[in-house]
Amino acid sequence: MAQKNYSVEGMTCGHCEMSVQEEIMEIPGVNEVTADHNTGAVAVSGEGFTDDQVSAAVAEAGYTLKA
Amino acid sequence: MAQKNYSVEGMTCGHCEMSVQEEIMEIPGVNEVTADHNTGAVAVSGEGFTDDQVSAAVAEAGYTLKA
Repeated sequence: MAQKNYSVEGMTCGHCEMSVQEEIMEIPGVNEVTADHNTGAVAVSGEGFTDDQVSAAVAEAGYTLKA
Repeated sequence: MAQKNYSVEGMTCGHCEMSVQEEIMEIPGVNEVTADHNTGAVAVSGEGFTDDQVSAAVAEAGYTLKA
């Protein structure tokens, strides 16, 4: 299982972390997501997911994936 | 129907507003709640609710009612 690390802008609290985590967890192949609103760090573990899928999930949650 | 205005510390985003609103709406007699995370302003409309009930609901949501 691979882990990829992303940086997300706009999360201000634990609710925001939950929103991001929930959307990313819906991507097929994703097994675990951790988000930290203090740093913007989002770690995604699983197989077969793409950066585009993560970017779309983050946008769906209302936040922005840093390039 | 009366409206009372409160000030709440710690709300950082729309999710926080929703959490506060949902907890306060559970108080019997409360008909409407609006919360603004930018100002901390929380307006509660209804009849028969007390400041203590509002304070407890805000605490249950994870925030603090200013004295």
